[in-house]
Amino acid sequence: MHSRSIRQLSAVVLFVGLLLAGAAAAFAQTDPLPSWNDGAVKTSITDFVVRVTTEGGADFVAPEARIATFDNDGTLWSEQPLYFQFQFALDRIKALAPDHPEWKDTEPFKSALAGDVKGLVAAGDKGVVEILEVTHAGMTTDEFSKTVAGWLATARHPRFDRPYDQLVYQPQIELLDYLRANGFKTFIVSGGGVEFMRAFAERAYGIPPEQVVGSSGVVKFEMDADGKPKLVKEPKVEFVDDGPGKPVGINRFIGRRPIFAFGNSDGDQQMLEWTAAGDGARFMGIVHHTDAEREWAYDRSSHIGKLDKALDEGTTKGWTIVDMKSDWKVVYPPAQ
Amino acid sequence: MHSRSIRQLSAVVLFVGLLLAGAAAAFAQTDPLPSWNDGAVKTSITDFVVRVTTEGGADFVAPEARIATFDNDGTLWSEQPLYFQFQFALDRIKALAPDHPEWKDTEPFKSALAGDVKGLVAAGDKGVVEILEVTHAGMTTDEFSKTVAGWLATARHPRFDRPYDQLVYQPQIELLDYLRANGFKTFIVSGGGVEFMRAFAERAYGIPPEQVVGSSGVVKFEMDADGKPKLVKEPKVEFVDDGPGKPVGINRFIGRRPIFAFGNSDGDQQMLEWTAAGDGARFMGIVHHTDAEREWAYDRSSHIGKLDKALDEGTTKGWTIVDMKSDWKVVYPPAQ
Repeated sequence: MHSRSIRQLSAVVLFVGLLLAGAAAAFAQTDPLPSWNDGAVKTSITDFVVRVTTEGGADFVAPEARIATFDNDGTLWSEQPLYFQFQFALDRIKALAPDHPEWKDTEPFKSALAGDVKGLVAAGDKGVVEILEVTHAGMTTDEFSKTVAGWLATARHPRFDRPYDQLVYQPQIELLDYLRANGFKTFIVSGGGVEFMRAFAERAYGIPPEQVVGSSGVVKFEMDADGKPKLVKEPKVEFVDDGPGKPVGINRFIGRRPIFAFGNSDGDQQMLEWTAAGDGARFMGIVHHTDAEREWAYDRSSHIGKLDKALDEGTTKGWTIVDMKSDWKVVYPPAQ
Repeated sequence: MHSRSIRQLSAVVLFVGLLLAGAAAAFAQTDPLPSWNDGAVKTSITDFVVRVTTEGGADFVAPEARIATFDNDGTLWSEQPLYFQFQFALDRIKALAPDHPEWKDTEPFKSALAGDVKGLVAAGDKGVVEILEVTHAGMTTDEFSKTVAGWLATARHPRFDRPYDQLVYQPQIELLDYLRANGFKTFIVSGGGVEFMRAFAERAYGIPPEQVVGSSGVVKFEMDADGKPKLVKEPKVEFVDDGPGKPVGINRFIGRRPIFAFGNSDGDQQMLEWTAAGDGARFMGIVHHTDAEREWAYDRSSHIGKLDKALDEGTTKGWTIVDMKSDWKVVYPPAQ
C-alpha cells in the first residue's frame, strides 16, 4: 500500500469519523423540551410520542396519521387583556378614523377610539361584528395580509411592551418542534381568523399557511378592469372555527382525525373530545393559565378563554392539564 | 498498520464505495416522465421545474412556496360518460331503492333507477341536487367514507370494465411524483366532493387528505346518547369549489398562490388565471381530451368538462396545452 493510498484511506477514515460523530450528536439524549419542568405533565407528552413512534409497538402510528392540532389564542400565544386579533382591529379603527369623521359619535367606534372597554362591552356582539367588518373586509386578501404584517412589526403589547408575536409560549414552540422531529404534521385549529394567523404562523411556529385552520369570512374572486384577478374580503362571516366548529373545521380542512390535540378553553372541548374518540393512542392537552405573575391566571369565570366544562372533563378523563406556573420553566422566549 | 486495521479500512472503503454507487444511481439521468412523449409540452414541464429548483437561478422558488394544484375530474382521472362521483350517486340510488319504494314513481329517482339519462337531464339541476342529497347526506362522515371505499372496490367502469380508481392518468401520476421529488407540495383543487376524493386520493395519487380541496356540504358535530361524538353530513351545499370558487378554495385551504396549476375545463379557468397572475415563474397546464380511441375526445360543446374559454385563453397566453393523443404515450396504468 503506497503512501497515496494511505493518504486516501486516512481521508476516508476522517470522513467516516465525522459522519459517526454527527450521528452520535443527533442521537445524544438531549432534552427536547428544555422549557418544561420535569414531572407528570412532561412525561405524559414524551411517553405518548415514544409510544406512537416505536415501530412494532402496540401503539405505533404511521407517520402520515400523526396529526397534531393546536388551538392558538391562549394555547400557543397569550390572549389577554384582549384577543390580539381584536386589539389589531381596535388599532385599525384608530388608523382608519381620519377617513371616518362620523365614528366620533357612533358606537361601537366611539368607544373603540376612546379605548372605552365598558362602552365596547355595551355594544355587544353586534358591536364586535361591526368592528370586525370594517377592519377585516373591503380589501383584497393580499392587502389584508400586508396590513397584519405591518401591525405586528409596529404594535406593542401594553403589559409587556413587546411585539405581539413575541408573546408566544416557548414551551409550546419546543413541543411543536419535538412533534415535527417525530414525524408529526402540526396544525393550528383556532377560532381566530385564518388570514390573520397565516400572517405570522410560519415565522412564529413553523406552521405553514396550508396547515392553519381558522374562522373565515366570505371571499370573492373578481377581475380588475385591466384583467388582473383579485380576491376581495367581504363583510360576511363564512365559518366560525370554535367549539363544535373545530371538529367540523378539522374534517373540512384536514380530513383526518388528530391523534394529538392541545387547547386551553371550553372552545376547545369538542376538538379534544373528537380527538379522544378515535381508535388507538391519543393525547389531549389543556393549558391552564395559573400564572398571574409571568402571564395571567384565569379559568372558569374569564370572559376570554373561559375554561370550565373542558377543565372538568379533562380532569375526569385524565387528559393532560398543564399548570402553567409549575410546569413551564419559562413562558415567553427571550426578548429579541 | 497491522492487519486488523487494514481489514477495518477495507471494510470502510467497501462501505464508502457502496454509498457512492447508491448516490450515482440516484443521480442517474433517468426520465422522470416516461409516459410523456418527447416534445414541446414535456419540455415546458421539465424546463419549468429545473428553473424554479435551480438555486441561485433567477427563477428559483423556495421549497415551501412550490405549491402545485391539480383539478381532478378530466385532469387526473377520466370523467366520461358521467362524472364518476355522479355514477357513484346513481349506484347508491339503486342500492338504497329497496328502502324507498316511492322512488319508482318519483323523479329524478325513477329515471336514475331506469338508467334513463334523458329523464335525468329533464330533471335538471334540481334533480341532480336531490340525488346528491339522498346519497351524500344523512350519514356520518365515517360512514360515507366507507361507502365510497366499498363502491370503488366493487364498481366497474362501463366502457373499460375496470375499477374507477384505475382510470387515472399514468402521465399525471408520474408528473405528481416528479413534482414532489423536486420539493413541490401537490394539491387537488376540484369541483368534486372533498370527502369523496379523500377516499382514494392518497392511494391513487399520493395526495393526503389534508391536501385535497373540493366542494363540500354542511357537516354538523353531534354527541351520541352514549357520549360518542360524530360528524353528520347534512343535505345542504356549503361550498362549490369550481370556476371562481377555485381561487377562493385555494385561498381558504392553502393560503398561498400556486406556482403550478393543471386543469382541463372552463371550470379551471380562474384557478389558472389566479396562478398566472402571481410574481415569478409560473406554469399553467390544460389537458385537452383529443383521444377518442384510448379515452375520449371532447372540448367546446361537451356537457361534461367543457373546454372553450380556457382553451382560447390558454392558447393566447402560451399556457401548456396537452394534446392527449400526441403527448401521452399511455393514458391509464396497466390493469392490476
